Amino acid sequence: MDRNENTLHSFLMIGQSNMAGRGYIKDVKPIYDEHIKMLVNGRWQTMTEPINFDRPTSGIGLAASFAGAWRMKNENLQIGLIPCAEGGTSLDDWEVGGPLFDNAVFQTKLAQRTSLLSGFLWHQGENDSFGGRSSYYFDKLTNLVAAFRKELQAPDVPFIAGGLGDFLSSGRYGTYFTEFSAVNQALREYADTTANSYFVAASDLTANADGLHFDAISQRKLGVRYFDAFYGRKNVLGPLDDENELINRIQDKPLTRNEKAALLEISFARGDLSLADFENQLSTLNSMPS
Amino acid sequence: MDRNENTLHSFLMIGQSNMAGRGYIKDVKPIYDEHIKMLVNGRWQTMTEPINFDRPTSGIGLAASFAGAWRMKNENLQIGLIPCAEGGTSLDDWEVGGPLFDNAVFQTKLAQRTSLLSGFLWHQGENDSFGGRSSYYFDKLTNLVAAFRKELQAPDVPFIAGGLGDFLSSGRYGTYFTEFSAVNQALREYADTTANSYFVAASDLTANADGLHFDAISQRKLGVRYFDAFYGRKNVLGPLDDENELINRIQDKPLTRNEKAALLEISFARGDLSLADFENQLSTLNSMPS
Repeated sequence: MDRNENTLHSFLMIGQSNMAGRGYIKDVKPIYDEHIKMLVNGRWQTMTEPINFDRPTSGIGLAASFAGAWRMKNENLQIGLIPCAEGGTSLDDWEVGGPLFDNAVFQTKLAQRTSLLSGFLWHQGENDSFGGRSSYYFDKLTNLVAAFRKELQAPDVPFIAGGLGDFLSSGRYGTYFTEFSAVNQALREYADTTANSYFVAASDLTANADGLHFDAISQRKLGVRYFDAFYGRKNVLGPLDDENELINRIQDKPLTRNEKAALLEISFARGDLSLADFENQLSTLNSMPS
Repeated sequence: MDRNENTLHSFLMIGQSNMAGRGYIKDVKPIYDEHIKMLVNGRWQTMTEPINFDRPTSGIGLAASFAGAWRMKNENLQIGLIPCAEGGTSLDDWEVGGPLFDNAVFQTKLAQRTSLLSGFLWHQGENDSFGGRSSYYFDKLTNLVAAFRKELQAPDVPFIAGGLGDFLSSGRYGTYFTEFSAVNQALREYADTTANSYFVAASDLTANADGLHFDAISQRKLGVRYFDAFYGRKNVLGPLDDENELINRIQDKPLTRNEKAALLEISFARGDLSLADFENQLSTLNSMPS
């Protein structure tokens, strides 16, 4: 679609579990903003987390705080997230013409009916961190991203890739991911040698008890770093000076009356609020000056 | 794909919120069976609920107990569910060529790469129960199902449609759904006049506090009725004599060691189980005779 002031700017989420998100929802404040959408069944709805429900264990990912940071710089515009990440996948699983690739292309084409594709958000590599797979990472990623760009007619759209966590070398699966540093080097090299491509370091980020998945607050941090890379068209090689403050600003953004009503509706529909309490709180909300 | 003993039999879930499912997960026992799959990102994984994550309020739907009942009659076969239902949608929202229709067709085609499409599961109509819309229901449904059959090359695959709940006339939105009986008649008439199409009554089923969505146990009942219609190639016009017993058998099916290990893994990944407890329980499980 043509770009204008009402354009919804969409971002494709691809990769494996740390793009889908496994942070615990209880560990961070929610992000709820009517101008942040997610694609479900080919249509846009207001984003809630988990966004990328690829597993019963899906939770907080980096896309929500990415979107929140984007909104800080685009006060009157809408952003839409296209969730297509799939846990436990290698680059071979993402082969061109396979179901993951074809689904991501199709979902993005549905999104493009009503939005302007504005970025690729990639986080993947744990499943290419063993058995010699890392030596093929650069070439396979190059082919994959080129295929996405071609299929989606998106030659210049920024591609942001994040590094794997340093915690991978310890923890329950520590002996497994022997090549994660080589994958990080390949991701960095890809960004350094490919137009419109940027690398975001996972420095200082921490994991769930599994030693495998970024915890919720680390996903919030990674998301604002992704936005910094996107906005500045640059690599982000360490923590931002103000990342905690920025996360607080995003999470504490005041809710509009519509947003408050929508959250009440969700609580009621989930059974967390009785009908009487729901109607009382809705009535109180509607009687307040807007 | 060709049919053989290893064929996965797939079923497309389409319609609105009561197909997606809004029953509270805490209200029923889980159904977990490695032979019951769901399509996510174009690939099959073991089914967990919610299956059809169209909203943050998604919960128990009818498809899980449908699949459980199917498994009782197909002990060595696999079933796969293709979740494409979208809350709050009218038949106009399902127009041929629109995002919901195109997404459902595409997801089913991805599923058909590795499965045999074996049925359509439809529940929809609340959003056509007002404003004169019910008088167009029969014709619009006829066109829609014909288009699905054509796109998916599935002229003879059974189509199962369930009735709307009697509770719709009371409750919070009671005055809204003035034409729900007419929609039920149209669904019944469609089944009675169309080959390979069957109607399932929602008799005696109950709702959440919203008076709008089937509660969890009602969804379990509706699912086994859908299976009775599918298996018997007939309308099911009231409760089954043994539906409670059948639901118990499905929910209490003994878990294999693999299934128990997978559920432990999910609990751990969700943070419901510490690393030490997870490893202890896994170790105990693996030391037991299989």
